[in-house]
Amino acid sequence: MFEVTVCDHMMVAHSLRGVVFGPAQALHGATYVVEAAFARDGLDDDGIVLDIGRASEALHAVLSDLTYRNLDEVEFLAGTNTTTEVLARAIADRLAGRIADGSLGVGSGDLARIRVTLRESPVAWASYERAP
Amino acid sequence: MFEVTVCDHMMVAHSLRGVVFGPAQALHGATYVVEAAFARDGLDDDGIVLDIGRASEALHAVLSDLTYRNLDEVEFLAGTNTTTEVLARAIADRLAGRIADGSLGVGSGDLARIRVTLRESPVAWASYERAP
Amino acid sequence: MFEVTVCDHMMVAHSLRGVVFGPAQALHGATYVVEAAFARDGLDDDGIVLDIGRASEALHAVLSDLTYRNLDEVEFLAGTNTTTEVLARAIADRLAGRIADGSLGVGSGDLARIRVTLRESPVAWASYERAP
Amino acid sequence: MFEVTVCDHMMVAHSLRGVVFGPAQALHGATYVVEAAFARDGLDDDGIVLDIGRASEALHAVLSDLTYRNLDEVEFLAGTNTTTEVLARAIADRLAGRIADGSLGVGSGDLARIRVTLRESPVAWASYERAP
Amino acid sequence: MFEVTVCDHMMVAHSLRGVVFGPAQALHGATYVVEAAFARDGLDDDGIVLDIGRASEALHAVLSDLTYRNLDEVEFLAGTNTTTEVLARAIADRLAGRIADGSLGVGSGDLARIRVTLRESPVAWASYERAP
Amino acid sequence: MFEVTVCDHMMVAHSLRGVVFGPAQALHGATYVVEAAFARDGLDDDGIVLDIGRASEALHAVLSDLTYRNLDEVEFLAGTNTTTEVLARAIADRLAGRIADGSLGVGSGDLARIRVTLRESPVAWASYERAP
Repeated sequence: MFEVTVCDHMMVAHSLRGVVFGPAQALHGATYVVEAAFARDGLDDDGIVLDIGRASEALHAVLSDLTYRNLDEVEFLAGTNTTTEVLARAIADRLAGRIADGSLGVGSGDLARIRVTLRESPVAWASYERAP
Repeated sequence: MFEVTVCDHMMVAHSLRGVVFGPAQALHGATYVVEAAFARDGLDDDGIVLDIGRASEALHAVLSDLTYRNLDEVEFLAGTNTTTEVLARAIADRLAGRIADGSLGVGSGDLARIRVTLRESPVAWASYERAP
Repeated sequence: MFEVTVCDHMMVAHSLRGVVFGPAQALHGATYVVEAAFARDGLDDDGIVLDIGRASEALHAVLSDLTYRNLDEVEFLAGTNTTTEVLARAIADRLAGRIADGSLGVGSGDLARIRVTLRESPVAWASYERAP
Repeated sequence: MFEVTVCDHMMVAHSLRGVVFGPAQALHGATYVVEAAFARDGLDDDGIVLDIGRASEALHAVLSDLTYRNLDEVEFLAGTNTTTEVLARAIADRLAGRIADGSLGVGSGDLARIRVTLRESPVAWASYERAP
Repeated sequence: MFEVTVCDHMMVAHSLRGVVFGPAQALHGATYVVEAAFARDGLDDDGIVLDIGRASEALHAVLSDLTYRNLDEVEFLAGTNTTTEVLARAIADRLAGRIADGSLGVGSGDLARIRVTLRESPVAWASYERAP
Repeated sequence: MFEVTVCDHMMVAHSLRGVVFGPAQALHGATYVVEAAFARDGLDDDGIVLDIGRASEALHAVLSDLTYRNLDEVEFLAGTNTTTEVLARAIADRLAGRIADGSLGVGSGDLARIRVTLRESPVAWASYERAP
């Protein structure tokens, strides 16, 4: 099994709903370092899992809808609690959509797994993995 | 599958028994950067794997029994060779105990996997994973 | 010359005023990894620049007034543009105040320099240094 | 499951064949930080997955055939496109060979998995995992 | 004194002339992680040392002339030994040129110092600092 | 001004004398990641500050006298409190001795500064700088 990972980051504000979040219920923010990993059983004729340039662009495009924003006001996240876990899933789902529409130049059927990791601080991070 | 990781560290002395360890048979020490990862198939009603604050506290409590000590004299490690692998398992087992007793606010049945990684230097680390 | 550095982090929301900031004029956020460095010509009788435990506590206390908040509403920052540079200075000034009031157990006259660095992403950081 | 990882690096020149590689079709180079991970269900009598010293030496020996070279002229890579994925597999295969010949002091049958990760920049890396 | 740093990277091939370089006399390569730091006594009216966006673009533009190339064939480096130190100076000099021509929106007279650091591996790096 | 840095690590046990050290008065240990930086106004005829290979060997040799040991029993440290600051100075002094005896192939008069940094955990480090 091969896996290729590309990395980018976003800087957002948000607040979390639920007493479990303590002080993070107030409006605050985070720099999320975001890693997107794409796994595949074999390699294509060029010897790669996928075009790393297109993967980087896809990740950057997905994060462009979020960075420098207050996530409490982002429409496609409305009604969700934007925890690190939920954001990891939202980003993975959007990347899966871009794979499905051909943007990454590799078919969903070629890949075995997508995993998105969000690092919110040096001491805490979360990831979500799904079929492509 | 979701996974949340929290990170802390401990500074300990110890010696290892066995010719395979060469100079590490002498009393020496290490800063272990310790990552504890908790995996879960879905999220709870707050949109999280578990309360990251309680997970951090649990990890810190487990490490508090070890840090600033000579592991050769720690009772619950007596009779073991405190390799990085063995320490990863000991810490994972103690975290599993804290999950079982309710300290983390999430049941053992809710989680799919615990993994503990100990980084002993920039060029060597070990991990242990188990059912919760 | 000796220098001791302690490190912590904070997670904040804020917005910046001025066209130069482009999209960062909108409310967004950041995880700032904060390093506080204390320089001294010689060492005290214990062989240290200062008590690293007290330095860590002082830095944590200073960051506690900022973390999990919207900096646009923090009173002592009112009227300032909370750029990374301005925040580095604000934190350094507050640490200098704590040195002056004896909280760190070392006198201002003993130290040669304070430097505070804020890392806002893997590709950008800023620092401010001043006399203690 | 236990896993032990050792880390080293190599500095190489190479060029890639295929329009998908864009500017990387020209002769350029990379520092690859290389992590080799060895997984095992249980521990041996010394409480380890394998001798970390021998694992480090084996990885260093494998990288010694590549570092400070132009990979376009390395015989055992002839006819391959030396992408990060292909290099990860080549290194993993060579490590598997060294396990099979007894160099690491642990049998192939004892291990559950080998995984080699090559970090080519702060924002891109690839890994390959196989049976030992 | 304030200092702002931006970071990028480049992937190059090159060879070094001189017996002191041992195996690095052969054509090989490196990923250089490049940090460019700009120091200034005070802040401008926006509360910044300089526009971090323009600084990042300037650094990226300077590195664009080098990345994915064989430095042995780069015209403006002809006749130099492209050691890490020499490359740090070349990049700093080019950044100083862009400050002088107004590309960064800050005058040479406003800045106190430029420092460029090139990290060639996890265990070796070099920097060069000069007046702007 | 140029500066070249090489990096290595050591794993030691020790105890500290003085109530200020709290739990660190007990025998414990640390992995110290050690950076040795050498500054020089200009470059030699090869375009370098010094031979990075010899600098790495010198640092490794100095650390070899300390790693895998209990510093409380190291003769040349007897009577000192082996704080991070004191260890940074001891290592810098030993490197200065090796420069003076010609081991690094560069004269003391050629260099402007030596600085040794010891990272004891992700959140604390200390450095010492001196004339060569």
